[in-house]
Parts: sequence; structure tokens; C-alpha cells
Amino acid sequence: MKAHIITIGDEILIGQTINTNAAYIGDRLTQHQVKVLFSSVVPDDEKLVLGEFKKAYSHVDLVIVTGGLGPTHDDITRKCIVEFFETELVLNEEILNDIKKFFEVRGRSLTKTNEEQALIPQIALPIRNMRGTAPGFWIEKKNKIFIAMPGVPHEMKGMMEETILPKLDEKLADRKSFLLMSNLLTTGIPESMLFDKLGDINELLNGAKLAFLPSQFGVRLRITVEDNNVDSAKSHLDEIEQKIRSVAGKFIYGKDEDLLENVIAKLLTDRNLKISLAESCTGGLISNRLTNVSGSSKFFDRGIIAYTNAAKVELLKVDEDTILKNGAVSLEVARQMAEGAKAVSGSDIGLAVTGIMGPTGATPAKPVGLVYVGICDEKICTAKEFRFGDDRLLNKDRTSQAALEMLRRNLLGISYDD
Amino acid sequence: MKAHIITIGDEILIGQTINTNAAYIGDRLTQHQVKVLFSSVVPDDEKLVLGEFKKAYSHVDLVIVTGGLGPTHDDITRKCIVEFFETELVLNEEILNDIKKFFEVRGRSLTKTNEEQALIPQIALPIRNMRGTAPGFWIEKKNKIFIAMPGVPHEMKGMMEETILPKLDEKLADRKSFLLMSNLLTTGIPESMLFDKLGDINELLNGAKLAFLPSQFGVRLRITVEDNNVDSAKSHLDEIEQKIRSVAGKFIYGKDEDLLENVIAKLLTDRNLKISLAESCTGGLISNRLTNVSGSSKFFDRGIIAYTNAAKVELLKVDEDTILKNGAVSLEVARQMAEGAKAVSGSDIGLAVTGIMGPTGATPAKPVGLVYVGICDEKICTAKEFRFGDDRLLNKDRTSQAALEMLRRNLLGISYDD
Repeated sequence: MKAHIITIGDEILIGQTINTNAAYIGDRLTQHQVKVLFSSVVPDDEKLVLGEFKKAYSHVDLVIVTGGLGPTHDDITRKCIVEFFETELVLNEEILNDIKKFFEVRGRSLTKTNEEQALIPQIALPIRNMRGTAPGFWIEKKNKIFIAMPGVPHEMKGMMEETILPKLDEKLADRKSFLLMSNLLTTGIPESMLFDKLGDINELLNGAKLAFLPSQFGVRLRITVEDNNVDSAKSHLDEIEQKIRSVAGKFIYGKDEDLLENVIAKLLTDRNLKISLAESCTGGLISNRLTNVSGSSKFFDRGIIAYTNAAKVELLKVDEDTILKNGAVSLEVARQMAEGAKAVSGSDIGLAVTGIMGPTGATPAKPVGLVYVGICDEKICTAKEFRFGDDRLLNKDRTSQAALEMLRRNLLGISYDD
Repeated sequence: MKAHIITIGDEILIGQTINTNAAYIGDRLTQHQVKVLFSSVVPDDEKLVLGEFKKAYSHVDLVIVTGGLGPTHDDITRKCIVEFFETELVLNEEILNDIKKFFEVRGRSLTKTNEEQALIPQIALPIRNMRGTAPGFWIEKKNKIFIAMPGVPHEMKGMMEETILPKLDEKLADRKSFLLMSNLLTTGIPESMLFDKLGDINELLNGAKLAFLPSQFGVRLRITVEDNNVDSAKSHLDEIEQKIRSVAGKFIYGKDEDLLENVIAKLLTDRNLKISLAESCTGGLISNRLTNVSGSSKFFDRGIIAYTNAAKVELLKVDEDTILKNGAVSLEVARQMAEGAKAVSGSDIGLAVTGIMGPTGATPAKPVGLVYVGICDEKICTAKEFRFGDDRLLNKDRTSQAALEMLRRNLLGISYDD
């Protein structure tokens, strides 16, 4: 089954609202074995909406529309459906009762405008809305399915989970093709180098698909397998994953929706280890990421954001002469900061960063993007140099990712080198 | 000028990535007087991409494409452009030099795959990429414009701001209708209360449009005015803005793309004040936001993330008995943390937060979402209670915003009460 998602609304086109509805629907359909072939956004304009209905209905099996079902003058979806399917509106008593109840519970009186929301295109099965007043519509014609839902995210999600996905599952019970996906999350290696490591890509994939999705946090590898047997799809996916792990396993920190901070939180918690942070250039970002994890008090002791040299000396016991000799952005200061974070807190591990995030602060010898990460545990106390780009906020993200990755490799006994 | 935005990539269709690029481009084009008529997402499939190019090029004046320009096998946009415009690839020396430099600066060696990114469709003007390796393309044919950019957000944004928008402005120099927008950024007041404060909305707007856009950081008020005279549009916009300020001015911390941390950075820098942070529940987020501002070393001294009670006592000189008596999440501990942050650092201001972010950590008397913010300067040393929601990450955002807003009002002598 192939789908086209249509989102209706000027606010999406002009960027006032980000289209999270389309992302949610795309994700849920994919999980339920529907292939999302297109997604489009059209303005609140009857002619353009009708044109898009026509186009979508002609090239896929399932059209899902959100938006434009509210009670006001600029909501035109229902009118367009009536015209597109050459049908008419009829009052639906069950939906009218739902709307009446909705207002009753909230102690508000029903307006004529709201009552009119119980008018349903004759061709449609109404989809009840337990969270708002606008019903959705389920239409089947010529072996194709057309679904319309309101654009309010939690109303739309309720309809998807309670009505639409179960109905689609029924329709797809005798499906003959399965689409499975797996995401391997890498960091510390550029896209092109990772690509080269994988060798002959066609031999590796053997008919499957592989996408490289880079960001400042690393490269996500998305493997997609389509097969008419679910077990052979699974084993094909496993096989590719194992092959990738065998050549690039050290760079893979997680799968699918994993976050590096959660991976580390689990490693630290399982081993009952406490960590303290000494951050200069990241200004608290690494500590922030680690404390985003629920239950972080089990492994996070403290973070010291030592922006000034004085703070580095006072709070982290960094040697003043070392700063004078090497500068605050240096391998040795990073190492001493990590050592200090561990010592002053009595934690098992100290992790430290110092660097130049830009756009100011560079010197001829120390360009923007130069970063040192230090790490100390019971066994080692070391630091490593990194070189990132020009953008301050991306550099903060990259630095935090590099420091957390160094910590992960340290915990797993994997070398820091490429 | 009418535009169609095309986003290429399976990851958008299946909901793995939210289409923030389309939102950004839609917003920027609208601000530059281009009407965004359609936005669509197509998979990494040559036939479907070509079909969408054809359709878009036939019904608008400007087609903007993002995605699919990376160096690997799944990047098909360049190939599709070559086919669509019946052109061929030629090596561009300037772009090759940019790519070489990009790798040189990062101390990495250039691969053959990367070198091939300097091959440009002959019909296109290359758009230089100062943040990555894939160049963009600007093509003009039959009085229409076709633009392609990589999908990596910061690379795409750089090209938009530095090359594309200035070039479009030149093309649009003789336009006849003007759409102006202004955003007032409020925080610390709910949407409904703000709406009530504004009184008769039609009288206030007089034909203009106003959107309320709430988030965890506050409510953004977007005013839109359309007029065939740019001066009268401007004065209408100004008039509405002044009226809103006269009734809700104390809640407005900035305009358009301002961030609260940048507003505060300017206030602190102008007055030559230094601040130190004491964070518990936000785990470094407030310090991170303040150090996102370029030049933050001028006003940011240090941040202490005192997650444990021991760290609060040792590093911030919080009285141990106060913690035992009132609990670490209390008005008095917040005040003492702020006092300690100021005293131990010798800064002019100490700002502190302590609270329960959830989902764990609540007690019958202290629910999830309970937060105390403390602030101390030369004159006052006080704290205030807040109650937020259930979501850990949203609570961290809300707490950081409340603390920074308390600081802003303190610096401007505005009361903390609603």
C-alpha cells in the first residue's frame, strides 16, 4: 500500500508552524507497513486543494489529509471533499451527540457553528473525535482509501491510534510485502570515510537500501529491506548490520532513537560509577545533556563550568603556570581539568573540555574550532585534540558529542583513534 | 513571485527527520515577499524526483530544492538536475578549491568521492558552501529560477542568507505589494491571559493579522500587515506594536529572532556586570544558553552545577541545616545558592535554580514541576516559586526561561509579579 500525506494550511507553508503532523503520520504509517511515497503542503485555497486531491488519488492507494476541518470560514477541507467525491452533506446524529457532550463537559453552550460540524459527506464513514469537535472522515472508493483529519496534533493522533491504524492493519492483514528498517548511529567519523570503509556498497546491500544521514552529532546509517517474507527480511537486515559493525563497529554508539547521553547513562549506572564534569567552551552543554536523562542523579555528581582562568585554578586545581605556559586551550590544561574534576568531587571519572568555539577568541596558532577533551579515571589520565568548524553553536554540539564519545570508548575500552 | 519548495529524502517522508528546512525556507521567502504556494517531499527516487521537478517548474516562478546533494550513492539530486535541464557536469575549479580547503583546515585527507562534488551542471551557477563540501546550484531558464541546496540545515541556511536571499531581493526590486511581519516575544504570561489583556482584537488590528504562537519559552505574537505602500504598511505595523506594548510591555523581552539569553547578554555587557550561576535541576542548561552568546566571557564568570547536597554545601556554602530542615528544593536553599554563587566567584550577580523536573523525585508536598529561582545582586537577595508541568525536558526549558526572565526583570527594575 502506497500513501500520500497532504497537509492543508498557510501557516505550514510560511513556516509559522513546523509540519510535525506529517512526520508523525509518516512514522506511524511506515511502522504499519504502508509506504509513504509523497507528502505535500497546500494553502487554504479551494482550487489548489482540489488539484492536490486529484493528483494524490490518481497515483497512490491511500491519501491522508490533515487540517482545514475547523469550524471557521477558512476551513475548506470538507467542502473540497464534497466537491471531489460529488457527494453531499448529511447530519450524523452520533457525531452531533459527541459535539454536544464535548461542550456539556466543559460547561460551555453549543453554537450553531459547532452544530454544523456534525454534517458529514454522505460517502464517508465519520471518525469520532474524543478530544475536540471536528470529526474525521474515512472514504473508500475504487479500491482506494481517502482519510481526512483535523490538524490539531493531539486530536489527529487520537484518531490515528484509536481508529485509523487498527483499520489499516485489518486491510493489510493479507499483505504480501514487508518493509523493515534499522538505524545505526555513528559518531567520530566523516560520511565519506565511513562510506569508503563499507567497501563495495552493492555487494554489502544485496538489494537493500542504505542512507547516510549526517548531522553535527554524527552520521546515521539507515538500512531498509523489503521482502515478501518477514523472517527473511529480518535476517537480511541483521546480516547487513553485522557486516557494517564488523568494519565500523567502534564508531557505532547506538541504534534507532538512542541518544549518546542515554547510552552513557546506562553504562555508568550499570557499573555504579559517578562522573563529574569540567567544562569551559561548552559552557554547561555536556552536563545539560547528561542531566536530560531521567535518573541522572545516580551517576552525575557535579559540573564545574570554569570559564575564567581563576575558576580553573580555584575550583579545578589547574596549575596556574601551566595555563601561562600553554594557554587555557591546551592538551595539558584539558588533562588537568579532568584530573581536578575527579579529585575535587571524589567521583570515579572526570571529563573536561576546553576550546575556541568562535567566532572570536582565535589566535594564529589556535584557530576557531580547536578543542581539547580530557578524561581521567582510576587507570588513565589523558587528553585528545579535535578540530571542528566555524559555527559557535555547532561547535558546542560537536564538542559535547566528541567528549561523550571519548567517555563511551573509555568505558568500553575502545581506542580513541580513527 | 510564487514558489514551490521541494524537499528530497526518505527520512522526511517516514518521519525520521522533521522538515524544519521547509519551515525555515517558507519563513524566509515570505519575509522577502515571495509567496510560497506549495511544499512537497519526495523520496530518493530518480523518477519521482524528476516528475516533481517538472510539475513544480510548470506552475511557479521559483523552485527551491533541498537534500540529496551529499557525496554518497543515495544522493541523486545533481543527477536529476542534469537530466531535467538536459545539461552535463563540468569540473569547477573554485568549488574544488573550497572543498580542498575544507579538508585541509580539518587536517583530513580528501577522498575521490569528495573531489567529485566539484562537478557542476553546466547550466548552473554554483553556490559556494562555506560550511560543508556540497555546493548549491542557481539555474535560470525561461524566466524561471531553480535553486538546489544541500539538506544539512546550517549549510542550507548559510547559502540562503549569504547568496540566495540577496539575489532574490535584486530580482524583486520592482514589486508592487508588500507583506510586513513583526514578532513580539513574551514570556511569563499564558496565551489566554495575554489575549484578554489585548482587549477588542478587531479594533486593535484594523485589518491586520495576529497569531498567538505558544511554546515552552513563552508566547510569540506575530503581526502581519499587507499593503501596496511600504510606508503605510510600516506605520500600521508600528501602531499595533505600540498598542500591544502599552498593555503587555513588561512581558515582552524581544522581537523577531531575539533570544532571551542575547537580550540579557547585552544588558550585562553594557553595564559591565559579571554573573555566576548555581544550577541544580537544570543541570547546566542556563549556563549553556548564556554561553551560546558570542563574547559570553565578558559577562559569564562561572557556573556550578551542584546536583548533590554535598556539592551545594562545599561549592556554594549552602547551610547544611537549611537543607535538612527545608529540603534541597526550597525557597531558602535557592536563595542561599544564589548568594553562594555570587560570593564564591566575586561576581556582581548570582542566579540559582533548584527544583523537581520529573518523572521521579516528587513527594506529596513537592510535586514534579516545582521550581525555585534565587537571585542576588548588590541590593537584593531573594527567591520565587514556580510550578510547571510533567515533562522533564520541557520543565528544564521552562525553568531556564523563568530564571533568565527573572534576571532580565531584575536588571530592568521590573517587578517579578504578573
